[in-house]
Amino acid sequence: MQPERNDVGIDRGKLRWNGWGWIDAPDMLGERANDVWRWVGHTLAVDPLPNTPAVPLSEIALPPIRLNAQTLRELGALTSPDRVKTDSYERAFHARGRSYPDMLCLRSGRINPAPDAVVYPASTDEVLVVVRFAAEHRIALVPFGGGSSVVGGVNAQSNPNQTGIVMLDMTLMNRVLGIDAEARVARIEAGIYGPALEKELQAKGFTLSHYPQSFEFSTLGGWIAARGAGHQSNRYGKAEDWLLSATLVTPAGLWKTEAFPASAAGPQFNDLVPGSEGALGVITEAEVRIHPVPEAKDYRGYIFMDYSAALVAARTLMQSDVHTAMIRLSDPDETYFLQALHMGGEADRSARFCLMLVGIEGDKAIVDASRERSQAIVEANGGMHMGDHFGTAWYKGRFTMPYLRDPLMDRGLAVDTLETATRWSNLGHLHAVITQAIGDAMAARPGLPGSKGIVMAHVSHAYEDGASLYFTYVYVRDPDDPYGQWQSIKHAASEAILANGGTISHHHGVGTDHLPYLLREKGQLALNMLRAVKSQVDPLDILNPGKLIPKDRQG
Amino acid sequence: MQPERNDVGIDRGKLRWNGWGWIDAPDMLGERANDVWRWVGHTLAVDPLPNTPAVPLSEIALPPIRLNAQTLRELGALTSPDRVKTDSYERAFHARGRSYPDMLCLRSGRINPAPDAVVYPASTDEVLVVVRFAAEHRIALVPFGGGSSVVGGVNAQSNPNQTGIVMLDMTLMNRVLGIDAEARVARIEAGIYGPALEKELQAKGFTLSHYPQSFEFSTLGGWIAARGAGHQSNRYGKAEDWLLSATLVTPAGLWKTEAFPASAAGPQFNDLVPGSEGALGVITEAEVRIHPVPEAKDYRGYIFMDYSAALVAARTLMQSDVHTAMIRLSDPDETYFLQALHMGGEADRSARFCLMLVGIEGDKAIVDASRERSQAIVEANGGMHMGDHFGTAWYKGRFTMPYLRDPLMDRGLAVDTLETATRWSNLGHLHAVITQAIGDAMAARPGLPGSKGIVMAHVSHAYEDGASLYFTYVYVRDPDDPYGQWQSIKHAASEAILANGGTISHHHGVGTDHLPYLLREKGQLALNMLRAVKSQVDPLDILNPGKLIPKDRQG
Repeated sequence: MQPERNDVGIDRGKLRWNGWGWIDAPDMLGERANDVWRWVGHTLAVDPLPNTPAVPLSEIALPPIRLNAQTLRELGALTSPDRVKTDSYERAFHARGRSYPDMLCLRSGRINPAPDAVVYPASTDEVLVVVRFAAEHRIALVPFGGGSSVVGGVNAQSNPNQTGIVMLDMTLMNRVLGIDAEARVARIEAGIYGPALEKELQAKGFTLSHYPQSFEFSTLGGWIAARGAGHQSNRYGKAEDWLLSATLVTPAGLWKTEAFPASAAGPQFNDLVPGSEGALGVITEAEVRIHPVPEAKDYRGYIFMDYSAALVAARTLMQSDVHTAMIRLSDPDETYFLQALHMGGEADRSARFCLMLVGIEGDKAIVDASRERSQAIVEANGGMHMGDHFGTAWYKGRFTMPYLRDPLMDRGLAVDTLETATRWSNLGHLHAVITQAIGDAMAARPGLPGSKGIVMAHVSHAYEDGASLYFTYVYVRDPDDPYGQWQSIKHAASEAILANGGTISHHHGVGTDHLPYLLREKGQLALNMLRAVKSQVDPLDILNPGKLIPKDRQG
Repeated sequence: MQPERNDVGIDRGKLRWNGWGWIDAPDMLGERANDVWRWVGHTLAVDPLPNTPAVPLSEIALPPIRLNAQTLRELGALTSPDRVKTDSYERAFHARGRSYPDMLCLRSGRINPAPDAVVYPASTDEVLVVVRFAAEHRIALVPFGGGSSVVGGVNAQSNPNQTGIVMLDMTLMNRVLGIDAEARVARIEAGIYGPALEKELQAKGFTLSHYPQSFEFSTLGGWIAARGAGHQSNRYGKAEDWLLSATLVTPAGLWKTEAFPASAAGPQFNDLVPGSEGALGVITEAEVRIHPVPEAKDYRGYIFMDYSAALVAARTLMQSDVHTAMIRLSDPDETYFLQALHMGGEADRSARFCLMLVGIEGDKAIVDASRERSQAIVEANGGMHMGDHFGTAWYKGRFTMPYLRDPLMDRGLAVDTLETATRWSNLGHLHAVITQAIGDAMAARPGLPGSKGIVMAHVSHAYEDGASLYFTYVYVRDPDDPYGQWQSIKHAASEAILANGGTISHHHGVGTDHLPYLLREKGQLALNMLRAVKSQVDPLDILNPGKLIPKDRQG
């Protein structure tokens, strides 16, 4: 007996179609708002902050729908008429992901291309018939989960020879299909949102514990497609670690991947699924590694006066037998920024200290022992124990930071993030050159005369051999060419990453934004292999065209 | 400055060209030999044991060399004349791997095809020119490390349109090129043998700790190409876990794979290297994860009266926070066999108990704590602690077991092993059906009238979600059709594996022997992808033809 489908994961009408999260979410700055905005204006040297509201949907004319009524009727017959949507809200909501350039597009009201329709399939079989239909009718199909991509991964896009764009919204496929408690494996439909997934697993005593910042508004399939990482990936792994097998629908048929604890039967094609970005198949089901709900969690903070000593502490922790769930080390600039945000701008910039959060999860005895050992390692490397205040506060607010972008954009500002990873022996260097590159690029294109930008970073998602670096940069928008301005900064950062041994993305994916850099990262031969794989599963390039896979010979 | 090349890894002349290991290795049975052979004859119901020596090389006529003198001269010019070998010993030594069917072939003296030449390249650049030369001249190239494949992975083979077979013996490429102590990464040439690799790493305080049974006679490149596993893979990982990046030579050029701690820049093509079996490129260098030499090692034994309780203990250990390096659980038949071997045949078969070895490695404090906790888990599940005798004895003799095959074959007997893996929830079932299938198949083809076969297994290489199962079976050879007899047993076991949720190989690879089963395991779409990748890197199919990749549409 199959379990019942959940109700529609999230009511789209309650979500911001051109911003982050719930429409009625409270202002995350609360009482500190005025102080914070004053400090922001002061820091970025723009006073007063401009007023730059988004164009409301009611004032926007979306491009005409390219699919004719007959085609839409047939799509409805293949699924269900009420699961084929063509209203403006659905089309606008699904037009782009949630990157900064996506926001520039959506907020400007100039949305073109836009999806011609949004289809909500309810089963793998339905996906199969829709994919076949799309191939026959040369319709671009964009698999869409929560739509939280920040790299252009779900943007409505088609090739010139295609007749329309259908967004395949997977969020009705949201059932936990089975749990193998003995092997600790759950089989789950790909369209399930984070909260529903954890609710169902935890009701049975298990957890996936994949908690990205987008957790509330992203889906299992999206996490896999983008090779995502949760905050606690040190313990629970990235998508490529916890994905045990998958079912994908491709124009060439159903693809079920290997499902063994390990195998030597040649390369494992399951390894191609994480990072496949909807371009190698529509992920409809996944088997994932689950864990008993941890008995205890401990999140605490340490302060270092010296960033490089803090890096040594982080590395030593990762190379010890102490099992942390999370190490999050903010550089001095980010530490200052977080403190200023918290205090409404009164932080002292001269101190240059940095904050490390260490999270541990597991059986109570293990957590206690690990806390003790980790504290000893951190203190031996110059860290000062600050108790659990910072850790607990971070944990509580860990999903709220993206809400800050909309009010920043309403005030003529820009914020973007990017991430990379490299080995410990290169981490300090890479951090320095990227910081410099972003800073220089922001200075070269001030949004308003005399305005300034800020850049900050933290180390997170650590491994025995290295760690990721996550950058946030805030600057004043150029009102005349905000996209060109963003692109010049993004390009400078990407060049610095590639020239200095980093990967173009640690957990956001390729999408459209990192596509131009893939050749340099992977080499021509690997891209040829990628295209060869693509040609087997999707020879007509109907699945998420324009993402992940550079066009032939362009690199 | 590049480090010096080691001396030739192993003098081929000191190795058995048609058997296992050193020519002058002592009889592993020692004083117990007569008792053991009497017991073996009794157990297999053949008395006396036949005398079936191998045909000596001096009595063998190898097929004529197909490559002409000019071609051989050119190969010598591209490398060095003294590194292109065509003498009978080199040709015979490199003709096959070390599987049971390989032994049937070599010992029979009917060696056809045989290699036309053996080339020993000394650098990636030399491999590159040899590969180009082979492509131009349509010569099959078989990358060859230690030659210890037990699945036909290195057999001299060519396609009908090819002009000859050159074995690319990689063992001169045996340098440790660099160690990044901070990131714990070593860059090493692929042709290095196990002992030389560990000697060099350990001199610097590090270890890879990849110790397969073939450790002394296999190479880094071979471990990677076959997705191998060492005995202590619970702690140090399989090849696919510790391989961080690789350099391969392909007919389409050099292929350097991604080298990041983690990345979301699409599928990682480095994941295709483990298990690539020389068919997707010649692995010339690898970056691998290294560890500090463990301060302490603890190997001890436990006895269970109930095999299924022992499985629960093994699973519970793997799903706990106790970090074992090895769990090795022999079923009652293997426990009896090991005991009989040890005691010269006096073991009591009625007891039906089984032996679990638990190995722990690491800092002394961690090892002590883990021993205590693992012992508590094992005892809570019905295991009886037997001290460190069995563990220490196993550790000491862990590479010697393969030496038993030659004397078995000299006495008209056959021995083969095979391995698979599945989830814990399926492990007991899979163990039972494979045991039954092998037993039935042996009974259906008795080598001599009234003779019997024996089959035994152990669980090893365990994971959170499952474990591998390793079978050994011994039977009396059919003097008229030993290959057909072996094939019928192998086929029965393979069918049982595929029909019951196992993988066709956990760490031996595909080679030629598992090729017919790959379609059922992976599906048509995955094989199409594999062939598409192959066509990009090796469009003329000169690299290890006939292995790993089923011919088009044969599956």
